[in-house]
Amino acid sequence: MAEESSSSQYLVPPHTVSVNFPPHRPFGKVFKSSVKEALFPDDPFRGFKRRRGQSSTSTSTTSRGRNTTFINALKYFFPIADWASNYSLNLFKYDLLSGITIACLAVPQGISYANLAKLPPVIGLYSSFVPPLVYAIFGSSKDLAVGTVAAASLLSASMLGEKVDVAQDPDLYLHLFYTTTLFIGIFQLALGIFRLGILVDFLSHSTILGFMGGTAILITLQQLKPFFGLKKFTSKTDIISVLHAIFSQTSQWRWESATMGIVILIVLTSTQYLRKKKPSLFWVSAITPMVVVVVTGVIAYLIDGEKHGIQIVGPHKKGLNPISVKYFVFDPKYIWTAIKVGLITGMICLTEGIAIGRVFAGIKNYQTDGNKEMVAFGLMNLVGACTSCYFTTGPFSKTAVNFNAGCKTPMSNVVMSFCLMLVLLFLAPFFQHTPLVALATIIMSAMFGLIKYKQIYNLFKVDKFDFVICMAAMLGVVLISMDMGIIISVGISIIRALLYLARPGIAKLGKISDTVLYRDVEQYPESIDVPNMLVITLGSPIYFANAGYMRERIGRYIDEEIENGDITSGNELQYLVLDLSGVSSIDKTGIEMFKEVHRITTRKDIKLVLTNPQMELTEKFKASKLLDVIGKEWIFLSVAEAVSSCRFMIHESQCEKPTTIG
Amino acid sequence: MAEESSSSQYLVPPHTVSVNFPPHRPFGKVFKSSVKEALFPDDPFRGFKRRRGQSSTSTSTTSRGRNTTFINALKYFFPIADWASNYSLNLFKYDLLSGITIACLAVPQGISYANLAKLPPVIGLYSSFVPPLVYAIFGSSKDLAVGTVAAASLLSASMLGEKVDVAQDPDLYLHLFYTTTLFIGIFQLALGIFRLGILVDFLSHSTILGFMGGTAILITLQQLKPFFGLKKFTSKTDIISVLHAIFSQTSQWRWESATMGIVILIVLTSTQYLRKKKPSLFWVSAITPMVVVVVTGVIAYLIDGEKHGIQIVGPHKKGLNPISVKYFVFDPKYIWTAIKVGLITGMICLTEGIAIGRVFAGIKNYQTDGNKEMVAFGLMNLVGACTSCYFTTGPFSKTAVNFNAGCKTPMSNVVMSFCLMLVLLFLAPFFQHTPLVALATIIMSAMFGLIKYKQIYNLFKVDKFDFVICMAAMLGVVLISMDMGIIISVGISIIRALLYLARPGIAKLGKISDTVLYRDVEQYPESIDVPNMLVITLGSPIYFANAGYMRERIGRYIDEEIENGDITSGNELQYLVLDLSGVSSIDKTGIEMFKEVHRITTRKDIKLVLTNPQMELTEKFKASKLLDVIGKEWIFLSVAEAVSSCRFMIHESQCEKPTTIG
Repeated sequence: MAEESSSSQYLVPPHTVSVNFPPHRPFGKVFKSSVKEALFPDDPFRGFKRRRGQSSTSTSTTSRGRNTTFINALKYFFPIADWASNYSLNLFKYDLLSGITIACLAVPQGISYANLAKLPPVIGLYSSFVPPLVYAIFGSSKDLAVGTVAAASLLSASMLGEKVDVAQDPDLYLHLFYTTTLFIGIFQLALGIFRLGILVDFLSHSTILGFMGGTAILITLQQLKPFFGLKKFTSKTDIISVLHAIFSQTSQWRWESATMGIVILIVLTSTQYLRKKKPSLFWVSAITPMVVVVVTGVIAYLIDGEKHGIQIVGPHKKGLNPISVKYFVFDPKYIWTAIKVGLITGMICLTEGIAIGRVFAGIKNYQTDGNKEMVAFGLMNLVGACTSCYFTTGPFSKTAVNFNAGCKTPMSNVVMSFCLMLVLLFLAPFFQHTPLVALATIIMSAMFGLIKYKQIYNLFKVDKFDFVICMAAMLGVVLISMDMGIIISVGISIIRALLYLARPGIAKLGKISDTVLYRDVEQYPESIDVPNMLVITLGSPIYFANAGYMRERIGRYIDEEIENGDITSGNELQYLVLDLSGVSSIDKTGIEMFKEVHRITTRKDIKLVLTNPQMELTEKFKASKLLDVIGKEWIFLSVAEAVSSCRFMIHESQCEKPTTIG
Repeated sequence: MAEESSSSQYLVPPHTVSVNFPPHRPFGKVFKSSVKEALFPDDPFRGFKRRRGQSSTSTSTTSRGRNTTFINALKYFFPIADWASNYSLNLFKYDLLSGITIACLAVPQGISYANLAKLPPVIGLYSSFVPPLVYAIFGSSKDLAVGTVAAASLLSASMLGEKVDVAQDPDLYLHLFYTTTLFIGIFQLALGIFRLGILVDFLSHSTILGFMGGTAILITLQQLKPFFGLKKFTSKTDIISVLHAIFSQTSQWRWESATMGIVILIVLTSTQYLRKKKPSLFWVSAITPMVVVVVTGVIAYLIDGEKHGIQIVGPHKKGLNPISVKYFVFDPKYIWTAIKVGLITGMICLTEGIAIGRVFAGIKNYQTDGNKEMVAFGLMNLVGACTSCYFTTGPFSKTAVNFNAGCKTPMSNVVMSFCLMLVLLFLAPFFQHTPLVALATIIMSAMFGLIKYKQIYNLFKVDKFDFVICMAAMLGVVLISMDMGIIISVGISIIRALLYLARPGIAKLGKISDTVLYRDVEQYPESIDVPNMLVITLGSPIYFANAGYMRERIGRYIDEEIENGDITSGNELQYLVLDLSGVSSIDKTGIEMFKEVHRITTRKDIKLVLTNPQMELTEKFKASKLLDVIGKEWIFLSVAEAVSSCRFMIHESQCEKPTTIG
């Protein structure tokens, strides 16, 4: 018989190793290792312990060992201790230059974003003074420049604005902002301490991309109010309300303001273009906003701009941040709003800050620690909330400038902070003449870069579902509101994840000629079916949400195989081989599924064979007695070995009962 | 050198097949196949098409082919057409016996559960008349016996009772029950038509186990009111309120009622015990409830029980189900409650009915179709809602009795329905004398079996997390409320699923001696590390929620390997092999993760090698240009091949530069 002779191709040499069913691990041990894997995937104290071990081998006295341990712990909890101990004048030269550069950006950005958040402009300056100092002590990124961010400012303003009308009660509004910042700090610190960085993972790349793009459109539209010198405006943020508010009052448009705006926009855009062409001239685009603020401020002062339709920022107080602890609002009427806004904004700030820190750390080849960053952000906002600041994080624009200016350590944040102190002490009153239109154009020109057409198109090409998630965030933000945009997008992401869980990969395998490999027959059409056997690989994990599906799908494969099998040629299905290599986890419902599949195959006179179960599976197979049901001898280390053994047995049975063949 | 000579063990014979990067599949095709996989995993029309194909080959005329197609379609949509065409008197003998047996159970259960739902007892009898007829036409299970269920009855009563006080407005309460049943029908039918059986999958085995156990405790406690003949009671269902209501009025306890209750309980329990010992005597325990109802009813009538503290059911109308279409409540004040209760109850009824149908189909070796069952349940409740029934499903107790009585087809439901018709037409007034305590004990004795101690203990042994999910449902039901119990338990299940997604399996592989297999070093401690290489297998899927974790974890493996590597012996890390066999899906964030890993390894002078990517991965690698970044030549079909090639290259480079070794 041709089949018999060809069956030798399935034989693999037998070996002594079989599937390992490790002894029962006590629950405490398993639980400890899962918690460790879930919350400490980076094993933070590893390096710390190692250094301790090394130092104790190199020194014979225990006291010195303890000392080193203490220093290592200090360095772990206060990253400043790590870099400050080796700090030199040479490094300081770089940090001084970059610190001054980002300070030039911090002043106009601080005022602009405070304006976006409907806060007094000086709050924006305060926010660039204290938080950077805190970050310099606790932060693990060497490039991150601390500051306020546009998207989160607008989001909080629109959410808090629903509760308190800023025009009617500006003090309450401001105090609510401090309270929100306090909760952001508490929330971020808690996430860091309890090592829940895992939560940040649920804001996907696609959600962020869509949210940033949508927000950029929204913020640009918002800037049309000062751009055209309008006095009345809508408090809503959706695109329809905003466009209606602008075009319903074309008669109120002020050409003086718009002209100034267009000129500034041209200047800013051309310096940005220059920077793209000649990266060494980055400093030109970095200081342009400051120059714009100063020049337009002088012009507005000289021509008495306010009388000519050019609105200005308004009075500024001199002096450093006052303490704001007494202003926290714990009134039950407002506190829940503050907590809600704190949670959402805190999450967005964290994601942005951590992602940006990671990007630049990647370029310079060092690691930032997500959980440490959370602690740093949390402390920075906690201290900020107590010193009249509103929330800060690591904005992309400032961090990129800081990086380009050649910063070496978080000392550049300290330099920036020192510059801001000087501004607050001596120059603050000068900025009262800054025209609003100058701030509006500075914000607008920063926003254009946030709509990443190319990346969105790339998303469309690579993964349609990711594109939908991205567009949901973008359109949600533009058409409904910022918080709804995020919620819808994250909701879709989670549904996708659950859908994925409900329909894990499952494929039929065929043998690739001249190898011992078994691969997906759809992907490798040249692979060949094994006679009398059906080899299926299961995806991971096998859970209550997909156990039913798996059973149906396996049943369908069996039915198809039986239908296609030509019984006359002795090619009926005798063995079902389930490859478990990819299954890393299983639950009770999954185990029940295997029992049911075993019942089905037994009834159809097909032998169920399993291959390569992973550790968790072997443990649960044992505990649930599934092992006894299937039989340990029917569980193999690899598909090749299972096929080889089954072929051997088929051959044996054919030799025993020659009458059934002939 | 010892190492060089031993390196031959890693060599595998080269072969001609390499990783297949299939041509780009158009989005439409991919989308269609995913939708098909998600909604039609059982490929319902497959058998249908096949039969059609077979018939057209066997017959030459097209018209007969069309006819067969029509008959097959009829059989698909009306399962009754399938079994009725071959029905015989011989089969009917079995169905008649089992139909009469379950009718004996249907009367007391119908009255009892209607009582639990605070509805007039006759509604329970109506509900066992019409719905079984509808199920007989559309149902795909041969063993399911249709009827009302305890848990869902109590749940709806407690949820609707919050909105409408049954004592104050019993008519509105009843009409709201019809409306809820209507929505249950619409909801179940819609799930079936849109093939969303996937939703039912999210109620896990553990949740159901806990919910059933908790409800059994709850219902037993509720029965203490009629057991002790109490007149006042709490409307809450939690254990504390109920126990307080019972023990705060011990002076009101009626010994007559309690005595009768204890006697009945002993009778019922001993017949159940008998059934366990001698399964052939199942019919004794099946008809006992009916006997109890008749005997106690006669006693109550003779001794005029109501005067002696034995409450009775109360007046019954004669006649068949009146039409209830005109009673539907669409008042916006109540409709949302009806929809909410409909959704939750509909889901529970579906899960219970489908699961039970599947269990018995498994025993008899045929398949039930989940989506068809949903359609059948939906139609049955839709028709029921219009004919004064409240919701029904396939209760376990009745179905088990039906199965034991030897039913062959859904005809037994028709027989039961016919018996109920006779009862409604002629015997209904008799049941007005049934003592409430008799119904209470019948319910109680049915509940004891629903607390599955052994299964719960088994859960504890096999999977602690499943045990927590089960206990959350049980304690939630007992201590808070039935709906909260389910919501909390499903919530924990979903969090678990998401947590799993966030922390997929990832393990270091080692070579198993004398084989070409690479397995988890933790599971197979005898496996050996490959010099100069780090082999890691990744779990599935790689998603936004775990891409960050994967990168961290891979980074940590590399760091550990570099730390452990002894550079002096030339054993520094040169290759990182990522085995993708188990990764069945990836998203944009996952692709970015690979790019980042590639940057990290390149910087550390380590070559990134991938093995065995599945179809979806190869497509996305291509579309996102990751393939160009990594290089197609660094992607292998198996770990063994990748290791072999890398070993060869290490050997080559060592021969080229002999100075670096010496």
